Amino acid sequence: MGALHQGHLSLVRQAAAENDRVFVSVYVNPTQFGVNEDLGSYPKTWDKDIAMLRQLSSDLKETSGHEGAIDAIFAPTTKSMYPTLPPDSSLSGTGSFVNITPLGNLLEGKSRPVFFRGVATVCMKLFNIVQPTRVYFGQKDVQQTVIIKRMVRDFHLDTEVRVIPTEREKDDGLAMSSRNVYLGDRRRRVGIVLYQALQAAEAAYRMGMRRREEVLAFAWEVANRTSAAQDEHGVEERARFEVDYISLADPETLEEVHIVNEAKGAVLSGAIKMLPLESVRAGERLGMGGDEVAVRLIDNIVLAPRPT
Amino acid sequence: MGALHQGHLSLVRQAAAENDRVFVSVYVNPTQFGVNEDLGSYPKTWDKDIAMLRQLSSDLKETSGHEGAIDAIFAPTTKSMYPTLPPDSSLSGTGSFVNITPLGNLLEGKSRPVFFRGVATVCMKLFNIVQPTRVYFGQKDVQQTVIIKRMVRDFHLDTEVRVIPTEREKDDGLAMSSRNVYLGDRRRRVGIVLYQALQAAEAAYRMGMRRREEVLAFAWEVANRTSAAQDEHGVEERARFEVDYISLADPETLEEVHIVNEAKGAVLSGAIKMLPLESVRAGERLGMGGDEVAVRLIDNIVLAPRPT
Repeated sequence: MGALHQGHLSLVRQAAAENDRVFVSVYVNPTQFGVNEDLGSYPKTWDKDIAMLRQLSSDLKETSGHEGAIDAIFAPTTKSMYPTLPPDSSLSGTGSFVNITPLGNLLEGKSRPVFFRGVATVCMKLFNIVQPTRVYFGQKDVQQTVIIKRMVRDFHLDTEVRVIPTEREKDDGLAMSSRNVYLGDRRRRVGIVLYQALQAAEAAYRMGMRRREEVLAFAWEVANRTSAAQDEHGVEERARFEVDYISLADPETLEEVHIVNEAKGAVLSGAIKMLPLESVRAGERLGMGGDEVAVRLIDNIVLAPRPT
Repeated sequence: MGALHQGHLSLVRQAAAENDRVFVSVYVNPTQFGVNEDLGSYPKTWDKDIAMLRQLSSDLKETSGHEGAIDAIFAPTTKSMYPTLPPDSSLSGTGSFVNITPLGNLLEGKSRPVFFRGVATVCMKLFNIVQPTRVYFGQKDVQQTVIIKRMVRDFHLDTEVRVIPTEREKDDGLAMSSRNVYLGDRRRRVGIVLYQALQAAEAAYRMGMRRREEVLAFAWEVANRTSAAQDEHGVEERARFEVDYISLADPETLEEVHIVNEAKGAVLSGAIKMLPLESVRAGERLGMGGDEVAVRLIDNIVLAPRPT
């Protein structure tokens, strides 16, 4: 989807380490934006993206010889990807679509009902065009990885889905995201709350808790405390947020689990909405767009199954 | 879908003539039957199907040497085709599906709303498993051919869709169909009305008519006259039918056309329902099921574009 960051580059690096040829697709897919979501404002950073990929390819050539560099960037037109009908993002929209349900309707799909239809559809097309031995996705978009794996299995696609760990900021572990550029210093500092909440729940799991309420109580404790602390600050100090969901789900079906089955593990995930700043201080370092628009952040931690 | 007849065999013959290897799939796909359609009563004729294919393969070997014989019959289990969730035929059903709209909602799709979702989904799976250079479909199911072509184009599937002319009964030209076995002599004789109606409309087109009302009036004239003639017979003589639709449509979009564009041509198609016999005569030759169940028949004629 462009707007490349270190998370994307880590996928390319991993692909280069495991394969003789590497293709990178850069395509802002219109069908995964809802009719009320702003495709137009999605950051388009083509020149910077290409420069980053060129640099990475050159680095990879040095470290690994010819093998492992980027062989091609696939940046199709929308007319190539949607050759017969104009892409349609309405829920009842016309077109040729892949639907993976109920997986696509849970979690992120609740607030973005056409999102995973668009993702599955465009990935099916990409896979058919490139016919890759392996495809690389980031762990950060955990629901996407589960849906792509399901699609590959159900449609007997001849490719291996590789899921690469989430790249995180060095200082506090905030998950890298194209959206982080919208966070000025103040929202950036508070935005880590989601990861901290998930880490608290993970710690509870590691301490031996298995019941949903017990595990998630730790996450909610972090979220609620942080929220209350922000409320106590004045409008020039605080960055408020809303929790969209905190989920403890089965790793294959993404259905909420009541007691974690250690043989299967679980996925802890969440989404928060960083609200626009209520008042900006003189000289404050702001994000792209001046921190005037809400920014949705997602993150997750996999609770690995116990080795048998 | 099994229940093989000469129409299916003509597909295999054509495939054998054009390719080195031929795979035949035999699979009664549950997701293309609606929840109120009876998957259970669909004719299952496995032993006869295999015998027909063996005989054909042996004939092909004699006429063409090794090349062209049937290399494999692919007859998967439903657990292979739908590996994660049980197949669901409800309109809002869960699963991994390909939807091709609006094509799948027109004509046959109006009375069978999940039908083409099931067809597109199972064909996508089959194509991914077999990875065929060419796939063979019968002209008789014209909407299916248009939808498969659209799917191949929109999803960039690397296969060529070959459409083979409809096989017809020698005596009167009734399109071969697995459902014809349900027609006893009486319904069989009247069932030809659909093809006759389409032929009348084709004749009008050949005479130079291009306007929808003009062309279709010829088809309706045949249908209405035949229907009126049946009404005049007694219940022991007649075989009544209902016309579901008679369509004059664009060959790529299947949208109804008002004036045929000679550069594109058009598709004349229709569906009728042969109603159960009202009263059976002693000694009358009945179809499978005793002519007690309505039988839906479809047919079509392509009005080819004028050579440029």
